[in-house]
Amino acid sequence: MNRLFANLPTTIFEVMSSLARETGAINLGQGFPDDPGPEDVRRAAADAVLNGYNQYPSMMGIPELRSAIAAHYKHWQGVDLDANTEVMVTSGATEALAGAILGIVEPGDEVVLFEPMYDAYLPLVRLAGGVPKFVTLQPPHFRLTEEALAQAFSPKTKAVVFNNPLNPTATTFSDEDLNLLADFCRRFDAIAISDEVWEHVVFDGRQHRPILALDGLRERSVKIGSAGKIFSLTGWKVGFVCAAPPIMKVLAKSHQFLTFTTAPNLQHAVAYGLAKDDAYFEDMRKNFARSRDRFTDGLRTLGFDVIPSQGTYFVNIDIAPLGETDDVAFCRRLVMEHGVAAIPVSAFYAEGAVKNVVRFCFAKKDSTLDAGLERLAKAI
Amino acid sequence: MNRLFANLPTTIFEVMSSLARETGAINLGQGFPDDPGPEDVRRAAADAVLNGYNQYPSMMGIPELRSAIAAHYKHWQGVDLDANTEVMVTSGATEALAGAILGIVEPGDEVVLFEPMYDAYLPLVRLAGGVPKFVTLQPPHFRLTEEALAQAFSPKTKAVVFNNPLNPTATTFSDEDLNLLADFCRRFDAIAISDEVWEHVVFDGRQHRPILALDGLRERSVKIGSAGKIFSLTGWKVGFVCAAPPIMKVLAKSHQFLTFTTAPNLQHAVAYGLAKDDAYFEDMRKNFARSRDRFTDGLRTLGFDVIPSQGTYFVNIDIAPLGETDDVAFCRRLVMEHGVAAIPVSAFYAEGAVKNVVRFCFAKKDSTLDAGLERLAKAI
Ligand SMILES: CSCCC(=O)C(=O)O
Ligand SMILES: CSCCC(=O)C(=O)O
Repeated sequence: MNRLFANLPTTIFEVMSSLARETGAINLGQGFPDDPGPEDVRRAAADAVLNGYNQYPSMMGIPELRSAIAAHYKHWQGVDLDANTEVMVTSGATEALAGAILGIVEPGDEVVLFEPMYDAYLPLVRLAGGVPKFVTLQPPHFRLTEEALAQAFSPKTKAVVFNNPLNPTATTFSDEDLNLLADFCRRFDAIAISDEVWEHVVFDGRQHRPILALDGLRERSVKIGSAGKIFSLTGWKVGFVCAAPPIMKVLAKSHQFLTFTTAPNLQHAVAYGLAKDDAYFEDMRKNFARSRDRFTDGLRTLGFDVIPSQGTYFVNIDIAPLGETDDVAFCRRLVMEHGVAAIPVSAFYAEGAVKNVVRFCFAKKDSTLDAGLERLAKAI
Repeated sequence: MNRLFANLPTTIFEVMSSLARETGAINLGQGFPDDPGPEDVRRAAADAVLNGYNQYPSMMGIPELRSAIAAHYKHWQGVDLDANTEVMVTSGATEALAGAILGIVEPGDEVVLFEPMYDAYLPLVRLAGGVPKFVTLQPPHFRLTEEALAQAFSPKTKAVVFNNPLNPTATTFSDEDLNLLADFCRRFDAIAISDEVWEHVVFDGRQHRPILALDGLRERSVKIGSAGKIFSLTGWKVGFVCAAPPIMKVLAKSHQFLTFTTAPNLQHAVAYGLAKDDAYFEDMRKNFARSRDRFTDGLRTLGFDVIPSQGTYFVNIDIAPLGETDDVAFCRRLVMEHGVAAIPVSAFYAEGAVKNVVRFCFAKKDSTLDAGLERLAKAI
């Protein structure tokens, strides 16, 4: 067996969700909403599976969805994408990420990774034979700095895996950060693989700034998006990549051998959903912000030390003031004894792990959040 | 960019389907039926997407589907699988194959491949850093021989990728072949990655013999199946792997980073479908056999040299008697000038390609087959 995989633990998201299922805990771990998702989008999927085409669609995705993705970003961000050559549908953002890393990185290539990082990045870089170069971002702002980037980038840098908004910190990068990153990518001729699955979930009037809009990055980036995250239908596993044609040509080849294509009825439904007007997305953000505030206030009232959330479904607490020194042990106690699943943030570090931060998903119904808070009251 | 992918052509299945879409040709290339698939199974998917859970299911697959898969093989083939530890749902058989090859093969490991072979096998072996060892199977029977296996297997052999029934030849392996393969896998401590997506589509009273039933292979095999193929819903991309727990543990890790999970509503529908009785599958086979006969007879009447089909959706013709020496050129003419898409079988060879065989998919409505034959009449 491939030792790279044999030695890996099961992803923390699955571990915690399994424990929650087994113990009946309230699951504030893995990032998914507990409402059923937009009914009209689900109805579009149901109609398409009953009355539409259920055989292999084009491996690049159905034309309607590719056009809808291009139109969505044109309208929202003014980014011009050619639906035919710069957009490809994938079976979720995970496949998009795997395909991008495997399609771009060759054995020996250096890849810059920012810690904390989503737990798929590093194993995929290693699978590709890439050499990870870590930049550890520092709380509370998790900014990029010239010094740190200068240490990580080298003439051997092939790519950088970037995540904005950043999971698990629930922070967004500033224009200064983004321009600095773009500068390094240009100077070192590196490709930015940009995981932007949380792009629609930013709060307090923030605007997501897409990698493709940065100076000189249009031709050297892979933007990864997730319809599951955009429409709160995380199980659908409909993702997509946007990239300039020379990059997309290669991504199409890795996609061809990872999943080949994605269920056409779900693709139709996502195309339908992406045509929704600005008010829909604004409303979604407002609702998530309301949940964030409700949960943040609740945690604060209980005496938890909350690290403010600027985006994503997540908010973190600092457990050091509680005298806790082991986030994994804390989360295990939380789920086993108090009936609340959360995510220990050390799972997002390869080395020198921060051990005092715990992540909660607030994308839940008020009743779920309140019940979670009630249980958390007993844990403090 | 990763040169492995940069240098790969687009898969012939997509190339031919694209040409068919563009030119309005009758598509007898890529393997998919042109009927809408079982209505009750599609209805189950529609119900589940409207009324069921649409968030992340367990990464191993929903329990109902894993149990349904185990029950299906128990009932059909007497193979005992533990649904909890030996069955995992994947986003199609392609993902299953990618996950198995990447999960098992390490750089430098030798992997035995049989030509002709499905066009994903070799790139995935190379991506894993594996060293392919080819065995070229000889027409008309495509048997395994002691001599050929002895040349291909070595102490460095980690795995063998096997496909039974065999696409594109539309042949099935005999008990003698299978026992010989099992013998080599045991002797060289190799894992058989067995692509059995066509297991339900065998004709003339043949019985599919699963890899997991072979002597000593229960503990050293990965069986790959496809719900898309079983239910003629090829676009759904719901596949699965069955393997002993020590192997499955590692496959779960590669799956975790390739797609993580698969749409729960489609999983529910497949679980529903797998509970169908023997008569359903018998009937399906009878219908495909009828189509095969109709198309084979039609080709023969036109004067084509047909190589009989024992299983799969496919039947081949030998174009040498027509004075043709280039299957790719022939297929290109067929689609551009005569409006019929087919697959040149040289696409299934890495080297020393056979250039005189062309594959047709007969899993189509009578009217489609008849229209295809009418057009083919002009090509001979
Ligand atoms: C694929 S499970 C992880 C979901 C997620 O994005 C998270 O919880 O961080
Ligand atoms: C994934 S497209 C190929 C479908 C198929 O199995 C075939 O046509 O051989």
